[in-house]
Amino acid sequence: MKVPKGFLFSGISAEIKRSGKKDLGLILGSEGYLECAGYFTSNEVKAAPVILDIEKLRKSQGRVKAVLVNSGNANCFTGKKGIDSANSSCNRLAFKLGVEDRFVLMSSTGIIGKRLPLSKIIRSLDNLINSLSKDVYSFAESILTTDTVKKISSKEIKLSKGEARILGTAKGSGMIYPDLKKATLLVFIFTDVKITRALLNKASKEALEMSFNSITVDGCTSTNDSLFFFSSNQSSSGLVNKQGRDFEIFSSALKEVCLDLAKKIVKDGEGAGKFITVEVKGVKNKQLAKKAAFAAANSSLLKTAVYGENRNTGRIIQALGQAGVSVPPGAKISISGLKSKNVRISVDLKQGNDSHIVYTSDLTPEYIRINAEYS
Amino acid sequence: MKVPKGFLFSGISAEIKRSGKKDLGLILGSEGYLECAGYFTSNEVKAAPVILDIEKLRKSQGRVKAVLVNSGNANCFTGKKGIDSANSSCNRLAFKLGVEDRFVLMSSTGIIGKRLPLSKIIRSLDNLINSLSKDVYSFAESILTTDTVKKISSKEIKLSKGEARILGTAKGSGMIYPDLKKATLLVFIFTDVKITRALLNKASKEALEMSFNSITVDGCTSTNDSLFFFSSNQSSSGLVNKQGRDFEIFSSALKEVCLDLAKKIVKDGEGAGKFITVEVKGVKNKQLAKKAAFAAANSSLLKTAVYGENRNTGRIIQALGQAGVSVPPGAKISISGLKSKNVRISVDLKQGNDSHIVYTSDLTPEYIRINAEYS
Repeated sequence: MKVPKGFLFSGISAEIKRSGKKDLGLILGSEGYLECAGYFTSNEVKAAPVILDIEKLRKSQGRVKAVLVNSGNANCFTGKKGIDSANSSCNRLAFKLGVEDRFVLMSSTGIIGKRLPLSKIIRSLDNLINSLSKDVYSFAESILTTDTVKKISSKEIKLSKGEARILGTAKGSGMIYPDLKKATLLVFIFTDVKITRALLNKASKEALEMSFNSITVDGCTSTNDSLFFFSSNQSSSGLVNKQGRDFEIFSSALKEVCLDLAKKIVKDGEGAGKFITVEVKGVKNKQLAKKAAFAAANSSLLKTAVYGENRNTGRIIQALGQAGVSVPPGAKISISGLKSKNVRISVDLKQGNDSHIVYTSDLTPEYIRINAEYS
Repeated sequence: MKVPKGFLFSGISAEIKRSGKKDLGLILGSEGYLECAGYFTSNEVKAAPVILDIEKLRKSQGRVKAVLVNSGNANCFTGKKGIDSANSSCNRLAFKLGVEDRFVLMSSTGIIGKRLPLSKIIRSLDNLINSLSKDVYSFAESILTTDTVKKISSKEIKLSKGEARILGTAKGSGMIYPDLKKATLLVFIFTDVKITRALLNKASKEALEMSFNSITVDGCTSTNDSLFFFSSNQSSSGLVNKQGRDFEIFSSALKEVCLDLAKKIVKDGEGAGKFITVEVKGVKNKQLAKKAAFAAANSSLLKTAVYGENRNTGRIIQALGQAGVSVPPGAKISISGLKSKNVRISVDLKQGNDSHIVYTSDLTPEYIRINAEYS
């Protein structure tokens, strides 16, 4: 794995988690500022750091110097105090790094409705900064909650002139604290490719759509979901400034990294026993194809049938119909690989040329156990 | 229990179910025609009998002589053959009863995507007609699928002149056949009150809204849901033709019967261990209150937390936010009775005067077992 140039990482324990596991992470743009494209939860209730980041990215026009990340506490539904705590954390870090406050972002994941342990964070900042290195593993570990594995993916690309690197790390789903709001998704993608702002936006939007925006574990959208694409522009490659072959190479590699991470999240989904690919094709338009695929992927009845290795196509029809998708008598519906770890559900509505693929996991007694049995 | 005048019922086994349990039922208007207000599933995929009934009620302007009901087969996603089978069943019954075909309805519940066993139904019609009586129990039994209990509710009302009766029976949720599409709701409400068509519509719509339209077991809307309100106009009471005290008495009793049946369905929901009442109040408008209540009631995470007797208000906030409901910092959220069979979730958004109550059950390992483990 080659780490993109211009990034430093660290991850330590600030004792936010009772377990003593790593819970505070830092990303630093070591050579000037990072260009950042950020995407945030559509949940009407947004955690304090999400509210803050949206405002900061607007103010800084997408330029970022550092991102502070904590796990173990979502800093959500914490009112004005929550905003103040996130602000103070960023302020102090910005001061120590000698940059303006608006260039420092924050992300949180963990319990909803509990006060952020501000003093624990503040007193850990020096240690966090001193631990910065090119090694991404500690950072990747510090953002986890109930995840059972670190999720990292990387790719090196050769452009018409020179090379560049893409590296991503993500966390998704788990349970450590009694009241943890789960399935929060935090994703950080780093690249050193030289690329214009407009093309970074375009590539990241496309990659997001077919990866993280196409997965579901339990149909619950977190208050803290945050996805960041960072470019350091530090590679020796030529500037990607138009939609030619170089952009295609970068865009395609970015999609690969994102899809790999997205699938890792689903495979590590709470209680997941089987990885389910739902493909709906032959649809009139892309939007309807996505709606249909998610309707099936979010159906408790269908996910339970897959767990039970029961070929129940009636439940696919019911789910599509409930979502307002008409299923013509000639539609082809199939379930394959039911006895294996990889199940494929295919629906061909035979009404058009658009399609969409969504990834999900089965609904198992283990999911119930994880979410019901608290300390 | 006093059965409304002008109705006869029967329920027998036609061997549609492999178990040999009752699976064919009949409702007859014994004194002229019944006035009927019918409500059907919003699922885009509609079963053959649903498509047929909607058309017949339009043709007959809501007049009905008989309803044939079968359980064990949903006659859904069965194409033109399915429509033909439902039509043939109604035709033959209409002929035997000596009435026009358009006055005979049909309802089905059971497996999706299997051919209706038409010959079994046809050969059972004589037996079904010969078994007609004022006893509603056999009918109530014949419409069940995975239900563990018959669901009947009744009420007698005293109007300013004379009395009238309301009787209802319903089925909801269960599992008998390997591929059964579950949670189909069939509801039949009978009354002999003398009432105008417009007022029957008004009262039934109101009763439906606060009862059957306010429950959820697993958030899956069936392809076969059908609710019928029948009035025989055979009571000795005076005609209810305006919105005065008599209408209020009838309307209120109708709501009681519907709510009682709706709650019985939730309590008999698949794998249900706890009955959950979700009340959202202090909302700007009724529509938003209903949306908020259902968002909480349909959250797998929240329903699992209730199963685990875990006071997780964060999951309520997450569910409301995901549904687009903003939760102000001053909102009051409580969960009570967590250790008992009756759990109450209360949300006061303190933003207005509207409220809505929804009823649901917890999500349990038993739900997974029922829906995963087939023969």
